[in-house]
Order: sequence, then C-alpha cells, then structure tokens
Amino acid sequence: MNQENHSRGPAPDSDSRAYLHVPCEEIRSFVSSCLEKAGADEPSTDAVTRSLVGASVRGVDSHGIRLLPHYVKALTGGRINGTPSLNFTRLSNSTGRLDADDGFGHLAGYRAIEEGIRLADKSGLGAVTVINSSHFGAAGSYALAAAESGYLALAISNSDKLVLPYDGVMPFHGTNPLSFAAPVPQSRPFLVDMATSAIPLNRVLQYQAINRPLPPHVAVDQNGCMTTDAGNAAALLPVGGADYGYKGAALAALCEVLSSALSGMAFSHQLLSMAGPDYTSRRHLGHFFLVMKPAAFIEPELYREQMAAYLSDLRAQPACPGTRILAPGDREWDEETYRLDAGIPLDPAVRAEFSELASLYGLAPPGSPA
Amino acid sequence: MNQENHSRGPAPDSDSRAYLHVPCEEIRSFVSSCLEKAGADEPSTDAVTRSLVGASVRGVDSHGIRLLPHYVKALTGGRINGTPSLNFTRLSNSTGRLDADDGFGHLAGYRAIEEGIRLADKSGLGAVTVINSSHFGAAGSYALAAAESGYLALAISNSDKLVLPYDGVMPFHGTNPLSFAAPVPQSRPFLVDMATSAIPLNRVLQYQAINRPLPPHVAVDQNGCMTTDAGNAAALLPVGGADYGYKGAALAALCEVLSSALSGMAFSHQLLSMAGPDYTSRRHLGHFFLVMKPAAFIEPELYREQMAAYLSDLRAQPACPGTRILAPGDREWDEETYRLDAGIPLDPAVRAEFSELASLYGLAPPGSPA
Repeated sequence: MNQENHSRGPAPDSDSRAYLHVPCEEIRSFVSSCLEKAGADEPSTDAVTRSLVGASVRGVDSHGIRLLPHYVKALTGGRINGTPSLNFTRLSNSTGRLDADDGFGHLAGYRAIEEGIRLADKSGLGAVTVINSSHFGAAGSYALAAAESGYLALAISNSDKLVLPYDGVMPFHGTNPLSFAAPVPQSRPFLVDMATSAIPLNRVLQYQAINRPLPPHVAVDQNGCMTTDAGNAAALLPVGGADYGYKGAALAALCEVLSSALSGMAFSHQLLSMAGPDYTSRRHLGHFFLVMKPAAFIEPELYREQMAAYLSDLRAQPACPGTRILAPGDREWDEETYRLDAGIPLDPAVRAEFSELASLYGLAPPGSPA
Repeated sequence: MNQENHSRGPAPDSDSRAYLHVPCEEIRSFVSSCLEKAGADEPSTDAVTRSLVGASVRGVDSHGIRLLPHYVKALTGGRINGTPSLNFTRLSNSTGRLDADDGFGHLAGYRAIEEGIRLADKSGLGAVTVINSSHFGAAGSYALAAAESGYLALAISNSDKLVLPYDGVMPFHGTNPLSFAAPVPQSRPFLVDMATSAIPLNRVLQYQAINRPLPPHVAVDQNGCMTTDAGNAAALLPVGGADYGYKGAALAALCEVLSSALSGMAFSHQLLSMAGPDYTSRRHLGHFFLVMKPAAFIEPELYREQMAAYLSDLRAQPACPGTRILAPGDREWDEETYRLDAGIPLDPAVRAEFSELASLYGLAPPGSPA
C-alpha cells in the first residue's frame, strides 16, 4: 500500500514541516478579519472561520485556510451574500428545509446541524435539506459539529461537474463529498470525510500550487487520457478508478439524489463552476444533513462500550511494516494535536495570497514579526 | 475501463446465456418448496424466496438462488430459527429496534423496512436497527422494497471478517454492504447496491465454483500477497484497492458503527464465519435501515421532475466506445427484463446442488422435463 493516509488521502506534504508555522489563534484572527473586511456579517465570519481553521488544524489543507482568498473573491464579487437571513421551515417531526439565502455554505451547514439536533432530540432523527447555498468547504466540519455534541451525523453535498460517470468521457458529477461522524467516549469523534472522486478537487489545486505530481489513475486530461500532471487535469475518476469506478459513481449519484433531487436545487452538471470566471451569480447549491441521537437506538452506556471496543480492536490489528492501523479520524486527531502546538504550516502559495489580502485590508500578514 | 458493470460489478458471466435457463416461476416454486421442507415457516419462506429470486432476476447472481443450499444448511443445522417471533419496539417518533429472534435476515429486512415506512409516514423519517439476525442476502432487496413503495431508503449490514483494514495484513471488516434506493416516476427505482470491499465475497465464491479468475488487486492469499485465483483468496481489499482503500475502509467502518455500535450486536471481526464449519450457533448479526418519505422534504411533483431530469441527463452523457452510460440500477433492470422473459440461468455448480436438494426433498429439480 502507498503512503496515502486513512480516510482523507495523503499525509501533510513531506515538506510542510519546513513551511512557516503560524499559531492557530493568529491564523484564526487573520481569517476572521479578512472576512469581516470583505463584508461578511458576524455569524457568517464565525462559521467560515470555524470551518476553514478547523480543517487546517485537522491537516485537511485542501479544504482549509487556502480557500480564504477564494471565498473573499466570491463574497466581494457578489456570488455569496455576506449578510444572509437564514430561514428554517420544519416539514415534519423529523425533517426540515433551511433556506441559506445565498450565504456561505459553512453558515448553512452549522445551522442545519443545529436544527437537525433539535429535531433528533424530539424525534430520534433529524434530516435537513439546505437550499440556495454555496460551497461549504469540508463536509467533515458539520458531521463533526454534531458528533462533538453527542450525535451521529451524515453531511452530503454535490458540487460543480468534475468527475466522469463510469464509462464516461466528460465530467458530469461533482467530487460530491460524504462525511459521517459519531461520538466516542473520552475521545475525539469517529470521522469519515471523503470525496466520492478518486481524489478531491481541492487536492489537485493544492498539488498544482506546490508543483507536486498526482498519483496515477485519478485524473484525465482534456482528451480523456490519464494524467499525473495536476496542471493538466481536466476531470477526475470516481473512487474505484478505471476498474471499480462504478462504485464511486454510484456514491456520487447517491449524493446527487440527497442534495439535489430532495431539495429541488441544481445537480452538479447544472452548477456554475466554483472556480469562476463568473463570481457574480448565485450558485443555488443544495446540501443534505442527517442527525441521529444514539439514545434513540440504544442504551448510552452500551453505545459507548461498543464504540470503545470496536476502535480499540481495530487499532490493535497487525499492520504492514512501517505502518499502524488508523481508525477513521485518527490521522486528523494526530495532526490536530501536532498543529495546535506547532501551528498551521503555510505553503509559499498561500503565504503569497495572504500577503495580498493583508495589503488589501491593512492587516499584518500571519507570521510577520510582532 | 473494463467490462465490469455499473454499481454491482461484472455483467452476468459471458457463458451464462449458454447455461440452462429456467422460468422464474419454476425457480420461485423450487426455492420456496425447499425452504418449507427444510423447516421454515411461511413468512420466512416467502421473504427468503423473494430476496433470492429477486436478486437472481436482477442479475445479482452472487446473492441470488445460488445461496439456497447454504441457507438450507444453516436452517437445518440450527443456526437459523425457521419459526421466529419477530418483535418490534418503537424507541422514539422516528426510531425502533426489531428483534429478529435468530430468524432469517431476509424476513427481518423486509419487516424492518415496513416498520421504517410506518415511522416515516408519521414523522418523515424512520430508522430501524435489527438485532439477533443472520445473513440477509442482497442489501438491495430491502432498499428496493422501500423504493417500490415510494420511499427512499438505506440498507446496511456488516458480515464476518474478510476485508483488510487500510494498511492491514489480516481480515477485520466484513464485505459490509450498503444499498440506497429511491423511487423514479414511471420507472423502476434508482438502486445502488454495493459491497464496501473491492469485490463481494459471494462473487469470489461464485468465481471459484465456475473456475473464473478474479480481477487484479481485489484479493490477497493467506500470506497477504495479491492473487487472482479465487480458490486461493483468503481476504479482500476494501474498495479503492491498494492505493485508495482508505475510502473503502472508512465506508466499511461506517457500516460497523450503524449495524453494530448502534444495535449492540457483534462487530464483523467477532462474528462466526458465514461459511461454517459451525452451522449450529446463532450469529447475532445487526443491520441498519433508514426510510425517508420524499413528501417530508419536497413537493412530490418537484421530486419527480428532479429525478427524471437527473437520470435522463446522466444517461445522455457521451460514453467510451462500445459502452453507454448507465444510471445506478439500469444494468439490473435491463437484466430483469431479459430474465423475466428468458428465465434465470443455472450454472453447472448450482444445477448440481439443486439436484441434491431435489433428491433430498423429493422435488423435481428446476429445468427437468415436465
């Protein structure tokens, strides 16, 4: 097996420990100030900052603070409403719909989980579709928020077309992320957070920025030929790759049904590209969230015993030489421990973009001498 | 891309059209008679017959009628209770637990979906865990039953250990199937039905029976080395294979949490082997089912429009030469149309086993001259 890690893909770049490391609080403050200066209201600023910094702290660099310049552009361009009035409508004992008013998907994601928790407290389960939303960053942010409050949760979205259907030659599905989290006694949560593509788009962009080659059989060029050049990648394969991509394509389709068919929002192939050039028009993304209350299924003590036994047995399994068996989320929690102490590494591309934002808004760039 | 088909894996064996084809009704009657003679009560017989014949008609031969001799052995051996008293307990507005009384997982699966529908009718969603169950065949049987009644559904189970964890060398997870189905207007449902392993165990056994080689990078032998010899396969890789198996391993873990942590039942690595040698002891399997009522999310007419538009756009996508783009389930519905007319193909191994059962129970073997 290669050196890719569990549930999210590659470990932080081998060079990253040589990058400038900036304390999390300083990064948080910079991200928050930029969003505020760019016109986001306080709830939007807080939600986007929480999601981006949280992803970076967990080592999910592809969906972390490197997206800040993108969101500033989308906000100032008018694509995203920085002062939305969110509107939740309960539709049954266990379901509801959240209108995100074209605001940040991150704000909608956290709010949908809160509403899902309220429904689950009353009825055992709560499912919330989100309408009129935009990109929500790492799906794991929202499933994790539920698990940190003691609930199991599923967070699903679609995204603009970039992934071939099985046997296809042109992109049709998005990277369509799927996250699932569950609380674990006396520990950080169980956390699955994956794109249904063979590799996430944001990792391709990150690799392009740092000039790192892609692994084989994850991307094709404009002509539909396999490529390992991130700069030439025009479309991605579904998880399972050339031989078993029918499984990844089926999971991508599941995300379309839950995020779009059930919300009335646009399917991936109908969405405006996240990467522009249009940064003015609303994107009309849908998301799907499901929250489950453990006590509505099983005695809480037995749930805790079951989770603890499963995870400890899994981690104790024999592993390939030089590796150890990780449970979903373990790599993230290891990285969180490291980065909360050592700070968040900023690669040269992110540093340059942050310097531009700092100049624009009259802020000190993160990592500058005090 | 190879000739494996959408969402389930390989198309029916290339030789299968040369096999003896037996009309579905004749097969149904034989399966039902064998189960009855082996001691199953009427509800159990009907449920197992419905699931096995349904899977075979859809072309899912690995989980179809070839499992009949196995179930007869498990029933007569005492592993499975052929006359169970199922007991459903509602635990909240939207959740409940079904005690399968060590009966057939198929009976439990259909009953759990019925209870899930009752909950969803009242509350929008219904989730049911099943306890004290056994192997339930194709997960798709139950998600499909819900979709045929107008509901979206998820059906999940674990199964005895056969799949390596990511970076592992010994099997720990089961093939842990995941099925999702959704109703489609004027059409058979949208149907995802997949193992979270690179290939289903039952396909390995089927290939072993018909002496067909496995595709590369899906199985390892006793020493943890890759093998394409179905007879030598000792463990399977998670979907994603050697490079991206962290995604499949995470999905397998998700199935463990929902099927076992939430039900209190055994995890995959604790389960007695489906293949024996112990056919006497109860296996204490858990399953998880979620039913969603479309009208609890969206106006029914808009849901129907969305599903129709998505599927028609997907099927119209350009495809690799010699292929066409299939939506999840399309391959199954094509095969259903063919087999309802031409009959179900019986491979030589299944014919031999059916002849033995026919002798044992004094029945005419399927396909014998009238």
